[in-house]
Amino acid sequence: MAPVSPGEEMYALVERLYPLCRSITGDGVRATLDVVGDHLPLDVHEVPTGTQVLDWTVPQEWNIRDAYIADASGRRVVDFAESSLHVLGYSVPVSATLPLSELRAHLHTLPEHPSWVPYRTSYYRPDWGFCLAQETLDAMPDGLYEVRIDSTLADGHLTYAEHVVPGQVADEVIVSAHVCHPSLANDNLAGIAVATFLARALAERTPWYTYRFLFAPGTIGAITWLARNAERVRRGAVRHGLVLACAGDRGQLTYKRSRRGDAGIDRVLRHVLDTSERPYRITEFTPYGYDERQFCSPGFDLGVGSLSRTPYAGYPEYHTSADDLDFVSPEAMADTLAVCREAFSVLDRDRRYVNLSPYGEPQLGRRGLYDALGGRSDAKQAQLALLWVLNLSDGEHGLLDIAERSGLPFDTVAAAADALCDAGLIKA
Amino acid sequence: MAPVSPGEEMYALVERLYPLCRSITGDGVRATLDVVGDHLPLDVHEVPTGTQVLDWTVPQEWNIRDAYIADASGRRVVDFAESSLHVLGYSVPVSATLPLSELRAHLHTLPEHPSWVPYRTSYYRPDWGFCLAQETLDAMPDGLYEVRIDSTLADGHLTYAEHVVPGQVADEVIVSAHVCHPSLANDNLAGIAVATFLARALAERTPWYTYRFLFAPGTIGAITWLARNAERVRRGAVRHGLVLACAGDRGQLTYKRSRRGDAGIDRVLRHVLDTSERPYRITEFTPYGYDERQFCSPGFDLGVGSLSRTPYAGYPEYHTSADDLDFVSPEAMADTLAVCREAFSVLDRDRRYVNLSPYGEPQLGRRGLYDALGGRSDAKQAQLALLWVLNLSDGEHGLLDIAERSGLPFDTVAAAADALCDAGLIKA
Amino acid sequence: MAPVSPGEEMYALVERLYPLCRSITGDGVRATLDVVGDHLPLDVHEVPTGTQVLDWTVPQEWNIRDAYIADASGRRVVDFAESSLHVLGYSVPVSATLPLSELRAHLHTLPEHPSWVPYRTSYYRPDWGFCLAQETLDAMPDGLYEVRIDSTLADGHLTYAEHVVPGQVADEVIVSAHVCHPSLANDNLAGIAVATFLARALAERTPWYTYRFLFAPGTIGAITWLARNAERVRRGAVRHGLVLACAGDRGQLTYKRSRRGDAGIDRVLRHVLDTSERPYRITEFTPYGYDERQFCSPGFDLGVGSLSRTPYAGYPEYHTSADDLDFVSPEAMADTLAVCREAFSVLDRDRRYVNLSPYGEPQLGRRGLYDALGGRSDAKQAQLALLWVLNLSDGEHGLLDIAERSGLPFDTVAAAADALCDAGLIKA
Repeated sequence: MAPVSPGEEMYALVERLYPLCRSITGDGVRATLDVVGDHLPLDVHEVPTGTQVLDWTVPQEWNIRDAYIADASGRRVVDFAESSLHVLGYSVPVSATLPLSELRAHLHTLPEHPSWVPYRTSYYRPDWGFCLAQETLDAMPDGLYEVRIDSTLADGHLTYAEHVVPGQVADEVIVSAHVCHPSLANDNLAGIAVATFLARALAERTPWYTYRFLFAPGTIGAITWLARNAERVRRGAVRHGLVLACAGDRGQLTYKRSRRGDAGIDRVLRHVLDTSERPYRITEFTPYGYDERQFCSPGFDLGVGSLSRTPYAGYPEYHTSADDLDFVSPEAMADTLAVCREAFSVLDRDRRYVNLSPYGEPQLGRRGLYDALGGRSDAKQAQLALLWVLNLSDGEHGLLDIAERSGLPFDTVAAAADALCDAGLIKA
Repeated sequence: MAPVSPGEEMYALVERLYPLCRSITGDGVRATLDVVGDHLPLDVHEVPTGTQVLDWTVPQEWNIRDAYIADASGRRVVDFAESSLHVLGYSVPVSATLPLSELRAHLHTLPEHPSWVPYRTSYYRPDWGFCLAQETLDAMPDGLYEVRIDSTLADGHLTYAEHVVPGQVADEVIVSAHVCHPSLANDNLAGIAVATFLARALAERTPWYTYRFLFAPGTIGAITWLARNAERVRRGAVRHGLVLACAGDRGQLTYKRSRRGDAGIDRVLRHVLDTSERPYRITEFTPYGYDERQFCSPGFDLGVGSLSRTPYAGYPEYHTSADDLDFVSPEAMADTLAVCREAFSVLDRDRRYVNLSPYGEPQLGRRGLYDALGGRSDAKQAQLALLWVLNLSDGEHGLLDIAERSGLPFDTVAAAADALCDAGLIKA
Repeated sequence: MAPVSPGEEMYALVERLYPLCRSITGDGVRATLDVVGDHLPLDVHEVPTGTQVLDWTVPQEWNIRDAYIADASGRRVVDFAESSLHVLGYSVPVSATLPLSELRAHLHTLPEHPSWVPYRTSYYRPDWGFCLAQETLDAMPDGLYEVRIDSTLADGHLTYAEHVVPGQVADEVIVSAHVCHPSLANDNLAGIAVATFLARALAERTPWYTYRFLFAPGTIGAITWLARNAERVRRGAVRHGLVLACAGDRGQLTYKRSRRGDAGIDRVLRHVLDTSERPYRITEFTPYGYDERQFCSPGFDLGVGSLSRTPYAGYPEYHTSADDLDFVSPEAMADTLAVCREAFSVLDRDRRYVNLSPYGEPQLGRRGLYDALGGRSDAKQAQLALLWVLNLSDGEHGLLDIAERSGLPFDTVAAAADALCDAGLIKA
């Protein structure tokens, strides 16, 4: 069997997840987590309908078996079996025959993109509806239509899953991807895939931080997790975090800062993107977007940013049937994964050291740390890194500070810190 | 009677005030306050000569009835009756016949603008003199001239006035305009007119702050007011302030920051000017200019800025007879007034709120605050404003902070705060 | 005798010092300090070999009488008598006859500059070697060569010197120049010369600070001085400092900031360079360069910057025989000296005052401090300076702050402060 690249593996995962009809609750979420579970052991949590979670209440569980609009001849002109997008999410069951004039109030189209089907939901207001292409609607003659939505809204559970990569310390980094969107590849199957393979990559070697991956429905899932972990979070258990969304399109990477704006994750992503050859964009926090909204609510105010390629609502295909399997690419997902790995590699090593010989420079030559042949003007980066780490290791500067102030690569600075630690000249 | 615009009303007030001979004391100030009093009830204060006010002493009161230079034929070549500018302010009385060669030491002209009469004073050094056009001087043949200044310098009073618009809180905003300049339209009759109509506009609806308008002679008037209110001011009674000067010329608006540089008034004016379509200029504080010098002296260090059109000494007509009724316009004064109203409207509403549901987002949909139909990418500004106010209402950000950080109009942010307050989600 | 300019005097000093063979210890340093001592009384310190100084140990003393490579005919093809650069600094004694093939490992050249001789040392690793022009090496036929280095490495002393210009306060400013480089004119004979004449200039009038000049070998000398003054330094005795190096080439001035980045010396040099007509460069601190490395180590973290013309390793002639007497100029050294004098003149006068009449402006006219003739729009700089000093003398702003914020020349601000002090309106 030919080896497959991480990009291809992630793409294959997206392909498997694509047909499933996900929503904020229900069997589509469970099926999604089952597929992810083939790559990564998951702790799946089921939270009963009616549970109070912060200001919210876990809603009834929604499941759907079939839905269609059939014309007078019985032909299904809109059919849920063809695409999970065709039904307004959380539609209540309906079975009726209506003239088109009355049906129209329940039909959602995108006139500006007549061949695309929009994605619409009505989570907290009982409603039913169909989403279809404007072209389809235009081709529907007046007359009676049979509409049927075979769904159930009933007490049940909200489902989410966690996967933990244990680290050397209990301080946590959370990585979150929402799992509530139906057949939309970039939003957020690509994010799920990148998170899955990131977790696997981090486990290759015990990381410094403990990394907690969260696969949960948007908004209510993050709120549920925060409600169930509120005490732990308030005590500072979560040090950093990253929300992954829209991680697979061909656009350049976009990092959205945390509410704090200069949290550790913000500094790390800026550094990694800044020192890479990639084009990229960094945007300020806004309280709109994905689950960073919840993690960065003022009571928690976590250092959680969000990494996307083309961000939230930033492309015409967003929340339409055009966000399909062609819209994402293995290469783009591999690139997102690479930046995540690099960022967490920096985050994991960014620590403050204290120079144990802070008065004057310690004599590096006698410790074999420094070329003893003086007078040469071609100082090497590695030597410079030793001097920078010694000079700034005053307990107030971390290695990332030193990399940024010196202009040296983080890896060079981290290697210098290791060497100085080994020589007993600095300590963490 | 056809309705008149605020600009026309202000211009009419400037016309009435223009001929009066104002100085730092005397009946010209009283007459000026009488005219203002036709528009606005004033509390007029009379402070006796010799009163110690901070480092200064209230000077003798100066009044003048007549003054002229007459040539050998008895013809008045310079006549105070034609313009109050012709006499050096605070001239001691004189009655003499002098050759032109001796008289020259007492004559002030503007050689670079030969047809203009300069404005000069000698408040604290006994002196006398005449100000005249260079052309007039050039036309005066050698020979004897009769000079007469029928003035009095005698114990009396310094006069200033206050008008208070009561607010919902006792914290004060002071608005100050100097009333000591004679026939100079822009400096400062326009400022007096804008202050007068601003006071009337603020009273239309009880404002949040209490607004105190101060009509006082420059320097010594502000010092007198500060001396008489020093304890109150030191205790923090004055929260914000604005000095109005040169408020009527056709140049663009100029805001001069307070000594603090980032006081509330500085932030408000920057925001209002920044978000308007007007060209404008913001300049840093300098300890030169108008009465902001006194309000921003280091002992008081009040958050008082200054709003002008073309600022202090920034136009050739400054302190000359060319600063006349043609130099100011109703439109310019109306524009200055509009910016003041907008600024105080922002200042009045800029408060900090606390999110009472700070953990995660509160569920806006169930409170009717948010469109419950999810999945749409066309988030509206009003919804965004709700999220921004919730996210930043942590007790450390005011509504102006939120408007600036979100890029949303202040009015939108303030409306969101009102709605959230009504819903019990935030409190002031 | 025609008067000589300071530039010519400094150049003459560089000429006298040029032939001496300096190293980090030995008679070359002593001879150098003897020559400097002709201009400036010095306290010469001798620190025994083996003395522990911070993390270092004072090494054995190195002295050299003769060294050469002679060819088979006995002709000296490389001769220490011609240039002190020809011997690898701290070479151990050697007396041998070797084939060129074996000798090559001990020969240092600059292939990219075939006629220049490099400067090389091996202070802390026993070694021997010769430095020569690539051209010379290319002309040496294969065969046997006699090599002889008549040096001694033996217990002795490290030598450094101090000169103190007593000030009105005991707080010190240190000025340091390294004295360990052999026949290199810019690095650092020019620095030694500028330091010498700077000390003389400062003594013309008792300065505010006490100025301590340090002539010491690079690195180990500064470390030795810091070790012997560590308690004093830790207690804050040294308020400011400047390292002088590469002070005589024709390039523009370069100021390298202290580790703190905004220390007093940093602000003063920026101001002086900023307000002069000179081109200049200001660079951020790096822990590489001259003895600022030691003064700015994190334990001491002194406010010590470094002034050069073309900086450390910034020119091809650096650490080669091309850094000769032609490479430096009297004019360049005079210019460096002038900037140092101006900077210390500002540093010496930069104090915080407190306005004793901080409520409103004091009445300057009655104190004769202010032109009493009001109404003039041509406010003079001197009057403005009075107002600025009064306005900002709140105990938190120094005169340099005031000069920078007002945009007025420091001298004007300082003169205003003197006048206000004399008038009893401010006090230090």
